[in-house]
Amino acid sequence: MLSPEQKYDLVARRQSFLTPEDAESLKKLLSEKEQPKIAWETAPTGKPHVGYFVPLTKLVDFLRAGLHVTVYYMDVYGFIVNYIHSMETVEYRRQYYHHLVSAILTSLGVPLENMHFVNESSLSYDPAFVKDSHKLCAIMTQQDAKDITDEVGQTKMLSPMLCAVQQSLSEPYLDLDIQFGGEDQVGLFNHAKRFIPLLGYRQREHVMNVIVAGLDGLKMSSSKPAETKIEFLDPPSVVAAKISAASCPAGEVAQNGVLGMLRDVLVPISEQRLERLRGQTGAHVTEGKDLHAVQRPFATVDAPEGSIFSIGGRHFPSYEALEKGFVSGVIGPEDLKAAVVAAFNEVLAPIQDIYTKSRAWQEVEELAYPGGCNGH
Amino acid sequence: MLSPEQKYDLVARRQSFLTPEDAESLKKLLSEKEQPKIAWETAPTGKPHVGYFVPLTKLVDFLRAGLHVTVYYMDVYGFIVNYIHSMETVEYRRQYYHHLVSAILTSLGVPLENMHFVNESSLSYDPAFVKDSHKLCAIMTQQDAKDITDEVGQTKMLSPMLCAVQQSLSEPYLDLDIQFGGEDQVGLFNHAKRFIPLLGYRQREHVMNVIVAGLDGLKMSSSKPAETKIEFLDPPSVVAAKISAASCPAGEVAQNGVLGMLRDVLVPISEQRLERLRGQTGAHVTEGKDLHAVQRPFATVDAPEGSIFSIGGRHFPSYEALEKGFVSGVIGPEDLKAAVVAAFNEVLAPIQDIYTKSRAWQEVEELAYPGGCNGH
Repeated sequence: MLSPEQKYDLVARRQSFLTPEDAESLKKLLSEKEQPKIAWETAPTGKPHVGYFVPLTKLVDFLRAGLHVTVYYMDVYGFIVNYIHSMETVEYRRQYYHHLVSAILTSLGVPLENMHFVNESSLSYDPAFVKDSHKLCAIMTQQDAKDITDEVGQTKMLSPMLCAVQQSLSEPYLDLDIQFGGEDQVGLFNHAKRFIPLLGYRQREHVMNVIVAGLDGLKMSSSKPAETKIEFLDPPSVVAAKISAASCPAGEVAQNGVLGMLRDVLVPISEQRLERLRGQTGAHVTEGKDLHAVQRPFATVDAPEGSIFSIGGRHFPSYEALEKGFVSGVIGPEDLKAAVVAAFNEVLAPIQDIYTKSRAWQEVEELAYPGGCNGH
Repeated sequence: MLSPEQKYDLVARRQSFLTPEDAESLKKLLSEKEQPKIAWETAPTGKPHVGYFVPLTKLVDFLRAGLHVTVYYMDVYGFIVNYIHSMETVEYRRQYYHHLVSAILTSLGVPLENMHFVNESSLSYDPAFVKDSHKLCAIMTQQDAKDITDEVGQTKMLSPMLCAVQQSLSEPYLDLDIQFGGEDQVGLFNHAKRFIPLLGYRQREHVMNVIVAGLDGLKMSSSKPAETKIEFLDPPSVVAAKISAASCPAGEVAQNGVLGMLRDVLVPISEQRLERLRGQTGAHVTEGKDLHAVQRPFATVDAPEGSIFSIGGRHFPSYEALEKGFVSGVIGPEDLKAAVVAAFNEVLAPIQDIYTKSRAWQEVEELAYPGGCNGH
C-alpha cells in the first residue's frame, strides 16, 4: 500500500503543471480519493512516432499509483481537426492507434485488462453532451476557440473551432479526476480549467509530460520528414541509419536529438524496468505478467546494481550522471549512438513482433494510411 | 383540383427567389410532386411583432396549393444565436411562439390540424444530425459561417457560428422540398443551397417573402423601440396612438410606414378573405372552419364586389389602385391612418381574445419575457 506521498511522487515524476497550485491540488486529490480516474487523450491523426512512448510509459506510473487509467481515442476530434480525411478514414486510424497503443502497453508490461479504452464517439453523440457543447459554445468567444493550439489558431476552417469544446467536455463525460497529456496541450488544459466549471461541473486536475525532440533536436512531428523521427515499425537497420545520421555534437547537450531521445524515452523505460525487477510496482501487481521475457534495464549484466544505462563499457545510475559523462567527454557520440540504437531496437522488437503476427493490424494500416502516407 | 400553373401562382405571389432559375425550378417541382413539403423556420427569440403576419398569411397560400406545411421552431438556433438567455428561457419562448403562431393561424382561417409543428430539438440531437453537423463544419470556412447574417457576421462569440449548420441541416432532416422565410434569410438560404448538396443531399427550393418596414418606414425589429412597430397584444388605443404618430407624409410612398403596413400586412389578408368568400381556397377545403364569424375584406358592405379596401368612403380593388389614390391626394393621411387602425384592430381582436382566455399562454409569457422585456 503506497502512502499519499509515494502516490504523488509516482504520478508527478517528470511531469509539469499549469500552475504551482495545481501540484498541491493533485497532492490533495491523491490523499483523499481511493482510485482517481485519469485519461490520456489522443486524436487518431498521423502515424504515431516513438514520442508516444513518453505518455504511454507514464501510464505505467499511474497504474502503479492505483489510478483508474483510460486511453480516450478522440475520433470526433480527429475528424474535425483535420477537415480533410473522412470519418471512415479517421475510424481506421482509431483502429490503427488501438493496435499500436495496445502493443506498446503490452511491451511496457501493462496487462490490457487493467486499462480502459473509450472512444469519444461513444460519448459525444449523447444528447446531453451535444446540449453541453452548445452551452459551452455560447459562453466562448471565437478567440477562445482559437487559443487552444497554433493549428486551430491558424486555420480558416470552421470545424477546428469545435476542438476545445469536444476535448474539454471529455472531463465530465468520462467522469475524470485528472486529464493527462503532453505539454503541447497547455492551451486545451487551460481551456478546460476555465470553462468546465462555468457549465456547473467541478474543475479537474491536469498533468503534462514533456514533448520529446526529434532527431534534429527540434520538435518531433508526424508532419516532419521521416529521418527526423523514429517510427514504431522502423526495422533495426533503419533505426541505426537514422540515429547514425542524427545531430549529436560531442559534449553538447542543447539541440542534441540523440541525448534527448535517451533522456525522455529510453531512461524512463529503463528506470521502470529496474523498479519492476526490484518489486517496486505499487498497486500495479500484475505489471509484466504478459511479458514473454524478463526485461532488464539498458545496462549490461556486469553493471553494478542500480545502473540504468551502460555505454561503451561504462555504467550510469541516472540520466544526469550520463549527461555529465557526455559533456566531460567520457562518452563520445559514437558510443552514445550505438547504445541508443541497441536500446531502441530492443524496445521496438516486441511491438514489431505483435505487428508481424497481426493480420488485422496490417490490414487496417493500408485503410488508415493509404499508400503509406502519414497524412495530417 | 388546381393546375400546376395555379399552384405556382399561389405559392409564388409576392415572393422572391435567390435566382431567376429558382422560380423555374419551383415551377417544375410543383408540376411533378403531389404534395411538396415546405417549412417556415422561426427561432424563438424576441417577442414577435405584426411583421410575422406576412409569412403566416403566406402559409394559407401554401395550404391552398396543396403543400405539406410545417412550422419549424428553431429552439436550438434560438439558444446558440443569442448566447445570453438560457436554454430553459428559450424553451419558454418557443412555447410563447407556439401559442401566438397558433392563434394567428386560427385567426387567418387555418385549422391547426392541417399544420405540422416541429421543434428543432426533436431532430438535432439525433446522432446522425450531429455527425452531419460535424461534416458540414469540416467543409465550411469560418467566413462561410459568418456570411449568413449581419448578426452572426459581427458577433465575436462562438455559438452563432453554428447557426448556418443548424438551419441548413433542417432541409434534409425535415425532408423538405422547399424552405420558406423572409428576404432577410437570403444568406442562410444561399448557404443551404451551396452546402447541402456537398453532404450528398439534394438541393432544396427557397421562397422568400418581403420584410415589412416599421412605422418609421425603416426595418421593423424586435430590438427597436416599441413605437416603431405594432405588437400582437397591443390594445386598440395603443394601435391607434402608434399609427397616429407614424410617419405618413401626404402623397409620399417612400419611407411611408403606414402605407407599407397596409401593402404588406393588411392587403394580403384582405385578398385572402375575399377569395375565401368566393370559394377560391384550392386544396385548403377546411379553410375558415374554426372562424367564429365570417371574415370580410376590409371594405364596407356597400363597396362594389371585388373591393379589398375602403378608405374615407372610397373603395379600391387592389393595393396599386389605393397607392395611386394616395399619391394623387384622393386619400389623405388621416383617412388612411383611420382605415389602417380599424383594420389592424379587427385582425388583432381574435388573437387577443385567444390570449385573454388562455391561462397557459399568459403564464408562459412571464417566463419567456420576464419583466415584459423583449430581450434579444
